[in-house]
Amino acid sequence: MAASVNNNPQNKPPENNWRNTLYTIIFEADTPAGKLFDEVLILAILLSIIVVMLDSVSSFAVIYGGLFYSMEWIFTILFTVEYLLRLICVGRPTRYATSFFGVIDLLAILPTYLSLMLPGSQYLVVIRGLRLLRVFRVLKLAQYMGEADLLIRALRASRRKITLFLFTVLTLVVILGSLMYVIEGAESGFTSIPRSIYWAIITLTTVGYGDIVPETNLGQALASVIMIIWYRSSNIAVPTGIVTSEITFASRYSKGRVCLNCRFEGHDVDAKFCKRCGAEL
Amino acid sequence: MAASVNNNPQNKPPENNWRNTLYTIIFEADTPAGKLFDEVLILAILLSIIVVMLDSVSSFAVIYGGLFYSMEWIFTILFTVEYLLRLICVGRPTRYATSFFGVIDLLAILPTYLSLMLPGSQYLVVIRGLRLLRVFRVLKLAQYMGEADLLIRALRASRRKITLFLFTVLTLVVILGSLMYVIEGAESGFTSIPRSIYWAIITLTTVGYGDIVPETNLGQALASVIMIIWYRSSNIAVPTGIVTSEITFASRYSKGRVCLNCRFEGHDVDAKFCKRCGAEL
Amino acid sequence: MAASVNNNPQNKPPENNWRNTLYTIIFEADTPAGKLFDEVLILAILLSIIVVMLDSVSSFAVIYGGLFYSMEWIFTILFTVEYLLRLICVGRPTRYATSFFGVIDLLAILPTYLSLMLPGSQYLVVIRGLRLLRVFRVLKLAQYMGEADLLIRALRASRRKITLFLFTVLTLVVILGSLMYVIEGAESGFTSIPRSIYWAIITLTTVGYGDIVPETNLGQALASVIMIIWYRSSNIAVPTGIVTSEITFASRYSKGRVCLNCRFEGHDVDAKFCKRCGAEL
Amino acid sequence: MAASVNNNPQNKPPENNWRNTLYTIIFEADTPAGKLFDEVLILAILLSIIVVMLDSVSSFAVIYGGLFYSMEWIFTILFTVEYLLRLICVGRPTRYATSFFGVIDLLAILPTYLSLMLPGSQYLVVIRGLRLLRVFRVLKLAQYMGEADLLIRALRASRRKITLFLFTVLTLVVILGSLMYVIEGAESGFTSIPRSIYWAIITLTTVGYGDIVPETNLGQALASVIMIIWYRSSNIAVPTGIVTSEITFASRYSKGRVCLNCRFEGHDVDAKFCKRCGAEL
Repeated sequence: MAASVNNNPQNKPPENNWRNTLYTIIFEADTPAGKLFDEVLILAILLSIIVVMLDSVSSFAVIYGGLFYSMEWIFTILFTVEYLLRLICVGRPTRYATSFFGVIDLLAILPTYLSLMLPGSQYLVVIRGLRLLRVFRVLKLAQYMGEADLLIRALRASRRKITLFLFTVLTLVVILGSLMYVIEGAESGFTSIPRSIYWAIITLTTVGYGDIVPETNLGQALASVIMIIWYRSSNIAVPTGIVTSEITFASRYSKGRVCLNCRFEGHDVDAKFCKRCGAEL
Repeated sequence: MAASVNNNPQNKPPENNWRNTLYTIIFEADTPAGKLFDEVLILAILLSIIVVMLDSVSSFAVIYGGLFYSMEWIFTILFTVEYLLRLICVGRPTRYATSFFGVIDLLAILPTYLSLMLPGSQYLVVIRGLRLLRVFRVLKLAQYMGEADLLIRALRASRRKITLFLFTVLTLVVILGSLMYVIEGAESGFTSIPRSIYWAIITLTTVGYGDIVPETNLGQALASVIMIIWYRSSNIAVPTGIVTSEITFASRYSKGRVCLNCRFEGHDVDAKFCKRCGAEL
Repeated sequence: MAASVNNNPQNKPPENNWRNTLYTIIFEADTPAGKLFDEVLILAILLSIIVVMLDSVSSFAVIYGGLFYSMEWIFTILFTVEYLLRLICVGRPTRYATSFFGVIDLLAILPTYLSLMLPGSQYLVVIRGLRLLRVFRVLKLAQYMGEADLLIRALRASRRKITLFLFTVLTLVVILGSLMYVIEGAESGFTSIPRSIYWAIITLTTVGYGDIVPETNLGQALASVIMIIWYRSSNIAVPTGIVTSEITFASRYSKGRVCLNCRFEGHDVDAKFCKRCGAEL
Repeated sequence: MAASVNNNPQNKPPENNWRNTLYTIIFEADTPAGKLFDEVLILAILLSIIVVMLDSVSSFAVIYGGLFYSMEWIFTILFTVEYLLRLICVGRPTRYATSFFGVIDLLAILPTYLSLMLPGSQYLVVIRGLRLLRVFRVLKLAQYMGEADLLIRALRASRRKITLFLFTVLTLVVILGSLMYVIEGAESGFTSIPRSIYWAIITLTTVGYGDIVPETNLGQALASVIMIIWYRSSNIAVPTGIVTSEITFASRYSKGRVCLNCRFEGHDVDAKFCKRCGAEL
């Protein structure tokens, strides 16, 4: 979507005036001015994120709190101006506003304004990090996008596998969590089924915080069995599945033609004669 | 098995009356009524699971406990009626009752009745989650089942590898657990061999709760050595094994014999005649 | 080695008397008596391991301690008699005694005798678990051994990769442990370099007990950087490496013959004409 | 770089005197004297590392502290002399001093001298571990270097993938850390955004110390969702991506064009003539 905003000539304002110049500077990175704009923008985003992060450290906030507060507002006003300029100079403002980068650009300035009413929400400005995706445009790393695109396509290709996996995991986690809730009772930390599900997720992903652990013998035994089975599945079955699917893939191509003489299957694509009876294929 | 219940025409009651109509509604998802039935069923299952989960959270149970209790019984009675209808309208009741979905359907209603005698067991109704597998039928996602089938076949194909893996892990875990029990003594948390085995499983699966940890120098040293060796094995050896087996697979097909007539290489192991010139090998 | 003990006819005693019969019963599993012997043996081993495990649980030991003690000694005496019989009936006793199974058989009875002098060492009899490897012989699962053999060969084939990996990990772990020791000081739990190395191993293998954790800002920052780099390496680089090596492997075979006309490399094995200039190869 | 120091004949001092002999002993491992020198060096490095490690254990330091201190200084002086000799006998001292091994050799002696001013820094001498890389030269294991070289090339080949991965992880970790900071507040341990980022890294790498854990319901729910999505991505998407790219790679070669003359399929993308009949494609 972002690409369509940048590359679509229809999106560019038709008249050849200051709006067009502004568009070239803000949306494109091919002219020196446009590149400089993007570089300054990325620097400002990074600085603004660092300011928010430092502001959250109480020892810094005590000393530099006022400075951080001012800087945060300066950055927010700058980004707001930039957002408005983008809206003005683009051909179709609504199209930009609803595009991926348009939404991110808006979300990146909202938290500071929101913090006037809802203290604490200013930390959400770190969503500005997503704006850094523009860095790929500045560095002319179109191929990086291609890499990401490949990953997304791979994910989309394995959508069915992922759906199946998610369904299996969710069912497993709900049943396992409930079992542990019944077995452990409220003494251990398994105080409710949702909390037990949280434990199950922490265990199955092998994160294993240790804030909730089974304490009864039965609970520990069940957890052990589940862990070994799960470990076996993800470590052995997954690679096995890959190999199997590859071999299936390979054999699909090797189960070539059938000999009319001896009915032997499995001839290679380039075979001219049956390898078992010698009859011409 | 479930598939055979649904697709086998012999399972359908022969007479063309209300039982047949009921069968079409309950067991099939092709008619509007059948689809609606399945959709309502899935919704009811989901709702019932959510009710049980919320009921386990004490802060909710205090307020809505009575409501949850009533809803749970309404759902259970509904599912009981549905189970009885299934038994009535199906051609061979015993065959359905012993099929995968038949057992699940029974297990999904038992816990509530059981909770009258054994408080706490009502949480086991989350086994209803398995009933959601029917969702695949409603969504006409037969291919999802194919995906699962592929996974199951992959697991079955690597049965020997899994047996070997399980045996290795169990032996390793028992010996390691006993060693740590002897080394650590009862001060650390290694209070018995089964408990030490529980620790070994938590460590080797890299879950690492931290509820039981080695505290002596010797115990920490042994744990370190085991962890590195195990990590190396699962991270390096497994992919290596895959590559090795693939290369073996590939080379078996690429080396082959050479035809003495036309010097063609690359014949399969089972080839008797040259696939290019037909000469006997 | 064990296989050579069992299969090598030279190992069998030459005279055709009771020793030969005993050999057939004890070492082979082809006759009914031999199979029965192996089955009883496996059962005895399993029982003996279970007795030791239960004996370590204090609540059981208090009640059944005497029974467990007697059973343990009965099993040990039985296994001692069996070991002596093996030594007597085998053709070359020293060869059996130094073979893999010979050593295991001896180690499996020593701990109980040792426990008379060194209390606690009787738990080491779980090493009997390794004797269960004989189960593969009884179940005629020669192919399982083949599977294990494949794994061992895969490990041997990647010996260089493993050496490199181990060296890298050990160096990394020593340097990282020392750095953390200097950074964290003794307050956190990094009380010595060996202990810091133990922490580094727990962290890099992602076990993460949490018994020792960085507490200073610098320590947490260093740990974070190391974790991300390490995670990236093992999750991205390893599969990448596999694909790379496979492609290398594939291209090594595809860089077939060279066209004498246009010097184009990369012809397939079955190519007759240069695919670029059409000249006969 | 190190290789160029050792192998480049221009780096060898031109005159055929004691400097040349020294160069052969110190920098080469082909002569008996050179091999002995390298072996003694490796032993000294190992010993020196062990001394530092033992010195950090307080129970040893109390007893052998003086001995360790003396040994540490003896080793440092020895390595300093060795470093100076290397500088003297090498043809281009600055080139050696700025090479990989030159820098390591210097860093390996600095900490002890530094410890006179900055107590505690002497533990950094474990950087001497990197000097052990020379062991590969002594053992004539050039192929090990080849293995490492392959790994480095694989890493370099997947540079784009790694950059993308790092950028994704860093953005994810910053946003996730900030979200958790806002959700959890300072009660749990999420006392600042950098600390929350540390938590996010520990969670996503599945290390899971458990020193900082979400305690609010919302925080646990968010953590659960992130863990499952992340687990799914790294366990399913990565292998899927590999298979996808391999199949892409394979299909690129298998589909090809069809010869209009002999109907032979499977021509490569870059083929101009049929490899079987020589007809132009």
